[in-house]
Amino acid sequence: MKISNDLERQLIEWRRDFHKYAEPGWTEFRTTAKIVEVLQGLGWEAVYGPDVHDAETRMGVPDSETLVAARERAVQHGANRELVEAMGDGFTGAVAILKTGRPGPVLGFRFDIDSNDLNESTSPEHRPTAEGFASVNQGAMHGCGHDGHAAMGLGLATVLAEHIDELTGTIKIFFQPAEEGVRGAHSMVAAGWMDDVDIFVATHLHSRLGLGNICVGSDRYLASTKFDVTFTGVGAHAGGDPQSGKNAMLAACAATTNMFAIARHSSGASRMNVGTLTSGEGRNVVPRSAFLQAECRGENSEINDYMFNRAKQVVSGAAEMFDVQYDIRLTGRAETAPPSPELLPFVHEEFAALHGVNQVTDSGGTTGSEDATAMMNRVKERGGLATYVSLGMDTQGGHHTESFDVSEEALRMGVEAEAQIVFEAPAFLESIGR
Amino acid sequence: MKISNDLERQLIEWRRDFHKYAEPGWTEFRTTAKIVEVLQGLGWEAVYGPDVHDAETRMGVPDSETLVAARERAVQHGANRELVEAMGDGFTGAVAILKTGRPGPVLGFRFDIDSNDLNESTSPEHRPTAEGFASVNQGAMHGCGHDGHAAMGLGLATVLAEHIDELTGTIKIFFQPAEEGVRGAHSMVAAGWMDDVDIFVATHLHSRLGLGNICVGSDRYLASTKFDVTFTGVGAHAGGDPQSGKNAMLAACAATTNMFAIARHSSGASRMNVGTLTSGEGRNVVPRSAFLQAECRGENSEINDYMFNRAKQVVSGAAEMFDVQYDIRLTGRAETAPPSPELLPFVHEEFAALHGVNQVTDSGGTTGSEDATAMMNRVKERGGLATYVSLGMDTQGGHHTESFDVSEEALRMGVEAEAQIVFEAPAFLESIGR
Amino acid sequence: MKISNDLERQLIEWRRDFHKYAEPGWTEFRTTAKIVEVLQGLGWEAVYGPDVHDAETRMGVPDSETLVAARERAVQHGANRELVEAMGDGFTGAVAILKTGRPGPVLGFRFDIDSNDLNESTSPEHRPTAEGFASVNQGAMHGCGHDGHAAMGLGLATVLAEHIDELTGTIKIFFQPAEEGVRGAHSMVAAGWMDDVDIFVATHLHSRLGLGNICVGSDRYLASTKFDVTFTGVGAHAGGDPQSGKNAMLAACAATTNMFAIARHSSGASRMNVGTLTSGEGRNVVPRSAFLQAECRGENSEINDYMFNRAKQVVSGAAEMFDVQYDIRLTGRAETAPPSPELLPFVHEEFAALHGVNQVTDSGGTTGSEDATAMMNRVKERGGLATYVSLGMDTQGGHHTESFDVSEEALRMGVEAEAQIVFEAPAFLESIGR
Amino acid sequence: MKISNDLERQLIEWRRDFHKYAEPGWTEFRTTAKIVEVLQGLGWEAVYGPDVHDAETRMGVPDSETLVAARERAVQHGANRELVEAMGDGFTGAVAILKTGRPGPVLGFRFDIDSNDLNESTSPEHRPTAEGFASVNQGAMHGCGHDGHAAMGLGLATVLAEHIDELTGTIKIFFQPAEEGVRGAHSMVAAGWMDDVDIFVATHLHSRLGLGNICVGSDRYLASTKFDVTFTGVGAHAGGDPQSGKNAMLAACAATTNMFAIARHSSGASRMNVGTLTSGEGRNVVPRSAFLQAECRGENSEINDYMFNRAKQVVSGAAEMFDVQYDIRLTGRAETAPPSPELLPFVHEEFAALHGVNQVTDSGGTTGSEDATAMMNRVKERGGLATYVSLGMDTQGGHHTESFDVSEEALRMGVEAEAQIVFEAPAFLESIGR
Repeated sequence: MKISNDLERQLIEWRRDFHKYAEPGWTEFRTTAKIVEVLQGLGWEAVYGPDVHDAETRMGVPDSETLVAARERAVQHGANRELVEAMGDGFTGAVAILKTGRPGPVLGFRFDIDSNDLNESTSPEHRPTAEGFASVNQGAMHGCGHDGHAAMGLGLATVLAEHIDELTGTIKIFFQPAEEGVRGAHSMVAAGWMDDVDIFVATHLHSRLGLGNICVGSDRYLASTKFDVTFTGVGAHAGGDPQSGKNAMLAACAATTNMFAIARHSSGASRMNVGTLTSGEGRNVVPRSAFLQAECRGENSEINDYMFNRAKQVVSGAAEMFDVQYDIRLTGRAETAPPSPELLPFVHEEFAALHGVNQVTDSGGTTGSEDATAMMNRVKERGGLATYVSLGMDTQGGHHTESFDVSEEALRMGVEAEAQIVFEAPAFLESIGR
Repeated sequence: MKISNDLERQLIEWRRDFHKYAEPGWTEFRTTAKIVEVLQGLGWEAVYGPDVHDAETRMGVPDSETLVAARERAVQHGANRELVEAMGDGFTGAVAILKTGRPGPVLGFRFDIDSNDLNESTSPEHRPTAEGFASVNQGAMHGCGHDGHAAMGLGLATVLAEHIDELTGTIKIFFQPAEEGVRGAHSMVAAGWMDDVDIFVATHLHSRLGLGNICVGSDRYLASTKFDVTFTGVGAHAGGDPQSGKNAMLAACAATTNMFAIARHSSGASRMNVGTLTSGEGRNVVPRSAFLQAECRGENSEINDYMFNRAKQVVSGAAEMFDVQYDIRLTGRAETAPPSPELLPFVHEEFAALHGVNQVTDSGGTTGSEDATAMMNRVKERGGLATYVSLGMDTQGGHHTESFDVSEEALRMGVEAEAQIVFEAPAFLESIGR
Repeated sequence: MKISNDLERQLIEWRRDFHKYAEPGWTEFRTTAKIVEVLQGLGWEAVYGPDVHDAETRMGVPDSETLVAARERAVQHGANRELVEAMGDGFTGAVAILKTGRPGPVLGFRFDIDSNDLNESTSPEHRPTAEGFASVNQGAMHGCGHDGHAAMGLGLATVLAEHIDELTGTIKIFFQPAEEGVRGAHSMVAAGWMDDVDIFVATHLHSRLGLGNICVGSDRYLASTKFDVTFTGVGAHAGGDPQSGKNAMLAACAATTNMFAIARHSSGASRMNVGTLTSGEGRNVVPRSAFLQAECRGENSEINDYMFNRAKQVVSGAAEMFDVQYDIRLTGRAETAPPSPELLPFVHEEFAALHGVNQVTDSGGTTGSEDATAMMNRVKERGGLATYVSLGMDTQGGHHTESFDVSEEALRMGVEAEAQIVFEAPAFLESIGR
Repeated sequence: MKISNDLERQLIEWRRDFHKYAEPGWTEFRTTAKIVEVLQGLGWEAVYGPDVHDAETRMGVPDSETLVAARERAVQHGANRELVEAMGDGFTGAVAILKTGRPGPVLGFRFDIDSNDLNESTSPEHRPTAEGFASVNQGAMHGCGHDGHAAMGLGLATVLAEHIDELTGTIKIFFQPAEEGVRGAHSMVAAGWMDDVDIFVATHLHSRLGLGNICVGSDRYLASTKFDVTFTGVGAHAGGDPQSGKNAMLAACAATTNMFAIARHSSGASRMNVGTLTSGEGRNVVPRSAFLQAECRGENSEINDYMFNRAKQVVSGAAEMFDVQYDIRLTGRAETAPPSPELLPFVHEEFAALHGVNQVTDSGGTTGSEDATAMMNRVKERGGLATYVSLGMDTQGGHHTESFDVSEEALRMGVEAEAQIVFEAPAFLESIGR
């Protein structure tokens, strides 16, 4: 199919609006409110607020102060106050549902909507700055393309609303919050939204592939666990009474070094990082506190679990060495999720047929981590099919850099191919006997 | 001698004013301005601004932004703008000089004037809070009695101004900035102020001795070196490219642990502390920077030098291990300085004669560190005599705690005894053939 | 081809004799002497002693005392004294050469002959023990099948000697010492033995594949560097004078921990191990010495080099931290060497045609390390073709365990297929235009 | 008193005999047998074998193999086989008892008899070598003067046996084994031998004081705990299966480094040393075992306990970090024991009266550790008086060095002064009302 010029312009407008009002994970109040309003205008059912998530399962939610400020800012930036308040303590994101009323499969599409913790480039060569849609929120910037993802989600909703009479079954679009830090997918899974999905497609813009190159079976994501460690000891005057201290900094140093020293795994790639370490109260005080932000990864979930289990032993032992207390808090988790092989030829074909597409591959992608994998695995567990599509772009700035930008032409491709998937999925499923 | 009730009230008033407008090291703009104005009112010569210090030798001076803000605040809190501006980039503190015009010895008294980096207790049981003179400056509090020291210095100046006709020789009162972190004395020494002093007395209020107990030869101070360490490596994505990183955090951890592991010295006490460690840019980034605030101490300067030299080796080796750059910056230094034995009986006698004094001892004190030792050593090198007096107090809150308070009765004792020392010093010096 | 029953029995007899008199790397005096005598009896030229190796390039040679004792033991166990003495300070191993006098290619086969540092199982269920050919040398045992390799080399020499009139070109059989620790191949390469080889085949028995399963293109070996580290500090009485010590043990601990903590490489597998650490002179003495045996590995030589270069930085930095001297001595090195793709179909065919063969694969093998890769790479550099054959066995004990044993039926397979390779190599080379 | 020339010669002969047949702690079979035979010849009761010690309390006893070999060697070197066998598994040392049958105090003298683990100097300038009484036992040498102590004990027994009719009360001479490593005193204390002692004197030759200089109240010994640590993990192939290993070496490295990093104690000197570390099975195996010999010390027992308790936490935490097992075994312990002030003037006087004495002091000595302190403390607990005498010597080689030697003239001094103490103790005790 081919979308209209109007919708193509609208995609860009939405994307730039989301870009300008970038909101990091669990604070996407304005972004969500806008999505909900558009969806409602299109006639979709829009689930938002606490119903989107299983409250117990949410990870890495900011503190209350941050949430309060973010809600206030969202309203100042034009968000509907009622919607914002309904999202409460960070129940951001939305599930869009289109029930055709005709029998047919349940199709699910995932678009993530949060920004990064970055300050956007102020260089005049950076298009968002030059054209006036750079982020107005200090320390927040869409540096990974989720502004484009949110726009594609709305674009897809628009096309499908226009064609509802031609559709069967049910379509769900997941506007997922807090993908950065791989935090937001799990509580949507736990809320049951994936349980009846027959075909699931996650979509990501990808700056290194090149515009027109598309990987319809991204399978290189690493499983990962993100965790914070706090050590709490006892302070003491370092000159007058050092023996009374319980040194949280030394525990943190032992933990850090020895987490990096966890043995390699012979069955595949592993990673460990302690990214930040903050410890101590003053030069002449035995440090009573230390705080670490860490993560491990694995080529598969077994290797990642090995790394995390070993890390927990290291932290616990380090605390015991220095007679300090410790706390490990999980802040994010990603799995590996091989795409469903049966699904690939179908999705491949839909993207290959697009105007402007150069090359379509069935395997590849980056070695970062993705929590859409949790959604994919749930779909597959329940008998559905799932894959992850990477849409190539031509932009220069790498992901997670201050000069990242989106090839806006790619937005059209995502919408067109995925709409086509919706149109043809019933026949495809039938063809493979499902 | 006995000071007037008026002066006794004035001492308390001065002390509470300094307490309320607490200013940490090298930012004592309002404190110094007030001291200068009082001194000038009394007819003393008051040296202030760049002439007080040897610019090259100053250590641990805050950054420009902090100094600019502190000057502005001082003016807002009533300081004379002209005086404040004359102090420029933190040339705080003053040297008060009283020349009698009659031949005689040069006597020197040192009072330090800076506050600590503390937030003052808001408990109604804390007298400064209850009586309204708690610090109004966030993060700054007189938690070591330097507010009282500054008041005693002005009290001594007042008494001596009243009695100038009875005096001979020259009297200098050193209002030293930045004693916390043992930073401020060295550049006053380097400026030559100690070179002609015949008798030097430093004074400190001491919360653990008890009011009326006085140690006139405090000799337990530890030599100390304060230093900051910066490691600078190379960041990299911890998942996608860990081998390209140069990990400053691991260098900092190795340095920290192994500085604590420096061998004990068999000839006396030593100490090592890394008080703060801050490293890293984000959870999934190989840390490119680390910053440590550290200190070592020794029962004598040789032991302290051993510790610092070993620490430098450890830091340099840690940097090499991880192929990162490092920088060690000296931010403070204290020596050990045994009191002059010839001086002790004289000072002992003057304090023992005071009203309200319970016990006078010739040796003792705490195992902290003091940069007045640098002044004492310079005086002794040049042939003078020097000692360090600790004035006991009854207060509960320990030094460097948020509930520290001053026994204001002790202020009178310091002024009376030291004025008496001035009166009798010429005869004493003659009696010992100097 | 098919070997005679007599030769099959002889293979087993040779293998058991080598097994009984197991000799670790660079001490294979009896083993080499026996090989040389058999070769000479068959009419082969046998190069032995210093001509086998480039003396400068040998790595990991034991100390003189060990070599003297090993030579003496070899003679006591029946070795020809003259041959043993000709091998001098560990110039063990031999190059067997058969010149047909007819034009034709140079073919090379490599069999390694050294034993492991193991005590053999005394269990009656262990066949060498039950049948009386367990190692009589304390601490030495053939736990990797090199006894079988040596026997196969002699078997191949026997067959070829019988058929010399049917052959063209030159055949070389390399009886390589000191493969354990990947030490012995490099100095044979450096001596130039590989420079004219057109086809090179290395052979290894493989306990996990299963008898009858053969991989003719083993390509999973890891590049590896083996190295010893010595730290030398200064001893001191730990009670009376700890500050005078320079602690080699703490340097070794810092080096060990931080070598394990070297960052993973994103382009493939890496390994690090410090296998032994010995440090110190007595409980109450600051340790003046430390000795480490370490190794790193990489999925390719670039990754291995990254690991070794980082290890050297870590060691150097650790020495500097503790002001001690260090020495890094290379004791072994293995590369990666992909088999020549043109050679695989030919070798595949010869093994597939064997009686008793179940499955032949062209890729696979273990993730250990092999120094025959150095020979392979040299052959390939000079324009030749090379591969590495793993012969499956059914035995239970894993490689490098005390209960390892050889499936003696596999010996026949190796000899038969490799003799056939010799017969058909000229035609094969012609067929591919070489 | 003055001993005879014959006894003076005999002292030297005994000392050289003990020197030649040096036996380390718990293997003093020949030394003890000889002592017992001399004592029995003099008419003393000699308790030997298991009655000397409380079996449960012995620390740091060597393994059976060592004991068996040491017994055999003792017999080969002329020891009475029956006596040697009676000492069984290292129940060496003896208690000599002389009951006068007349009422009077119980006096105790302690002489230790074990050698060091040293190889004696073979330099012709080393007197024992030049004169043919250097140790014939490999790895064993009297490098601390205990050969002289044993001789003095026998000299004292000789003098007292000659004067038995002039004596009252009971005299005990403790020939203590295993002082090196502070192992042997505790089980003699636990066996109750000290419980009735009224005056106790321990004696040590001291190479740094100078001949004729005597300290009768050595009070500088440090409390100390000697301990072995074993870590037991799981081995694994470092290339093929590193993740299955549990790395005992990394646990040992973390424990070692962080034991050195235990915070200094502000109330006095502390020490920590890991003197030996042995770990690992082979270069390419994840290390499954590690063994450490460690010690801590403190200026008093409280500080030493602080160090040991912290060390235990560090070891336990290090084991947990690497999921390995650990065992801490106490191998020695020394306390601090201030001499009884009432006893000092009396002992001072007896030594001051000696021929050849230059200077007698009441305080001083070295900062090593001594387990006679356990005996002293037990005597004092039970109401007795105790002190520790250091006899100066002129010899060059320091204690615990291969060139240590004894000023044999000092032996006479010890015997004479201590015999005099025996003679005058009843009157002294009466004079102070005991």
